[in-house]
Amino acid sequence: MKAGRYYGPGDIRVENIPEPVLTSDQVKILTVCGSDLHAYLTESPGYGSVEPHPITQETFPVTLGHEFSGTIVETGPGVDTTKWATGTNVIMKGSCDTCSQGYRNLCPHIGFIGITGWGGGLSEYIAVNVRYLHTLPQGISLEIGACVEPLAVAYHAVKRSGFTEDKTALVVGAGPIGLFVVKVLRSLYPTSTILVSEPATIRREFALKHGATQVFDPTNIIIPEAIRSIVAPGVDVAFDAAGIQASMDASLFSLRARGTYVNLAIWEKTATLNVNLILVREINFTGIVGYDRVHEEVLSLIASGKIKGLDELITKRISLDDVVEEGFKKLLSEKDKHGQYTYMFFDNLSLSAGLTVKILVHPGSRSPNL
Amino acid sequence: MKAGRYYGPGDIRVENIPEPVLTSDQVKILTVCGSDLHAYLTESPGYGSVEPHPITQETFPVTLGHEFSGTIVETGPGVDTTKWATGTNVIMKGSCDTCSQGYRNLCPHIGFIGITGWGGGLSEYIAVNVRYLHTLPQGISLEIGACVEPLAVAYHAVKRSGFTEDKTALVVGAGPIGLFVVKVLRSLYPTSTILVSEPATIRREFALKHGATQVFDPTNIIIPEAIRSIVAPGVDVAFDAAGIQASMDASLFSLRARGTYVNLAIWEKTATLNVNLILVREINFTGIVGYDRVHEEVLSLIASGKIKGLDELITKRISLDDVVEEGFKKLLSEKDKHGQYTYMFFDNLSLSAGLTVKILVHPGSRSPNL
Repeated sequence: MKAGRYYGPGDIRVENIPEPVLTSDQVKILTVCGSDLHAYLTESPGYGSVEPHPITQETFPVTLGHEFSGTIVETGPGVDTTKWATGTNVIMKGSCDTCSQGYRNLCPHIGFIGITGWGGGLSEYIAVNVRYLHTLPQGISLEIGACVEPLAVAYHAVKRSGFTEDKTALVVGAGPIGLFVVKVLRSLYPTSTILVSEPATIRREFALKHGATQVFDPTNIIIPEAIRSIVAPGVDVAFDAAGIQASMDASLFSLRARGTYVNLAIWEKTATLNVNLILVREINFTGIVGYDRVHEEVLSLIASGKIKGLDELITKRISLDDVVEEGFKKLLSEKDKHGQYTYMFFDNLSLSAGLTVKILVHPGSRSPNL
Repeated sequence: MKAGRYYGPGDIRVENIPEPVLTSDQVKILTVCGSDLHAYLTESPGYGSVEPHPITQETFPVTLGHEFSGTIVETGPGVDTTKWATGTNVIMKGSCDTCSQGYRNLCPHIGFIGITGWGGGLSEYIAVNVRYLHTLPQGISLEIGACVEPLAVAYHAVKRSGFTEDKTALVVGAGPIGLFVVKVLRSLYPTSTILVSEPATIRREFALKHGATQVFDPTNIIIPEAIRSIVAPGVDVAFDAAGIQASMDASLFSLRARGTYVNLAIWEKTATLNVNLILVREINFTGIVGYDRVHEEVLSLIASGKIKGLDELITKRISLDDVVEEGFKKLLSEKDKHGQYTYMFFDNLSLSAGLTVKILVHPGSRSPNL
């Protein structure tokens, strides 16, 4: 079967690899995540290695694709088929196998399907242990199901930030993760003030449409001044979904005393920090990675209609064969044009011949076919 | 009267200035704070200005001395003399007059007696509104009373850190503030593990004597490795009382996932930060400045004997006349010798002719004699 495999920075190849043992085909949706782009550019934590991963035992290349959904086409021995019947739509959980400290996403040995091994969404088939699956509720399409993973990141960030209805937020960077933060905030806190800083016009429009109270172009305005003209003491929480020096500085100077700065972006460079600013305002400077057991809450927000309009955020659908040229390379070449990464969802559905994924689920061993 | 006045970086002069109207003399103790040393070296936030301070309305020079105690020698009109009788020993509260956000120590217009105007402890007399005073309980000497201000800083830091009995701490830098953090932690959490990193032998000995479980010399050992050999996942809270790149790096790499890094030191340089480290471990990176309404709690810890041995930390007593040469300059010249600032308490008591301070207390106007 075809699979997009990561050999290291700058080297992703769509190759034919052996299929897992499956009996029937099913449709699945793929997304390319910003983290994958970072891994394409530079060494990125977790994305394969020359050393075997402690859980998956895999080395380069690894099949990419960690934000995806699919339909069960076959069940292995021992699977509870009343729960995991063939035809059931599913999404992946975070797939860390162990955590010494109780926070699954921060385990030093974290494994992630589609990043560290055991196959990934950028392939036609995958075999997954049921412990790593959530059932996709009726009424939520596979396409939306593939959004749950990045939505879970945004949800986890909002949860960790201590946000409440009476608070105010600044979201810096309205790429997919920033937009998802806006969507989560708006769905949980209908009346809160959500301000957004984003240089690309199309993304500012997206942000306004999907929940922002007001949007600003940081290339034309000094963000902290603009923010303080609306919320005089500064905002309670700033979410940084851009991960550059300018976004950090804009966030920190826009916060009220004892405000919280939450990083969601992978940084490509080290930052310069005036620590005295943290002191004299007693700012909480933190960051999040992934999520920990929030998928059910996110699915429930989508199922109840509190989070809606996700389909409007899918701006492009491409086939697995085009994943490097039309996906990774184009996303990077359009970086300057849009001020930061462009984000697209990959989708072949059953309408296309190129990209279908079959899911074999099984309990028991960690990875029966690898 | 004599007063040590701050004209800006590198310029502190002991001068004769007019006395407030007072009727009798009393004894007082002075301390030189590390913050004063920073102000002596470089521009430091709050320490006087060519522009009038929004509360004190004072410009350069300002009389220094914000960590001090004294005895009431005269009361102004309207003072409740049943509470503020002549002869009562008192210490200063944080003296911010207004705060738009509910955190007195973070008010953008914060005023601080001994930093921004209205006189200071480095003088013979001071007139203070009773709203800024705490009564020093019987049994606590004026000398110990002068320690309450820096102890309040340490107490505030411990409180903000979310520390509890079952947690583990690393304190980086065992200067006076670091030692006070150790003292506060040990007094509140008798069985907790408190590890200390400090290059100066004499300070490591102080730390062990005053509550540290174990001490390390960062010039001979890799701190995160040493810490993890004792607390495998890393410590819960790292207190940085050094404020340099090496102390920040040692702290961050010694923390467990979701651990908290609390800065207490004024930084002289900007830091370089790998933000991804904050993300992938979801670290809380914060800092504190001063304190907010904790003096009563600190006084109660001293009065109950939970915090003891403070007198052993007073390593030198000097007179006001010698404050620049024996105080500021020597503290700075001994910096290299001790790895970081040396800290000394100033004290003339009644045994010395040089340094007595009379306190006039009054309610009503903000500053009757200025």
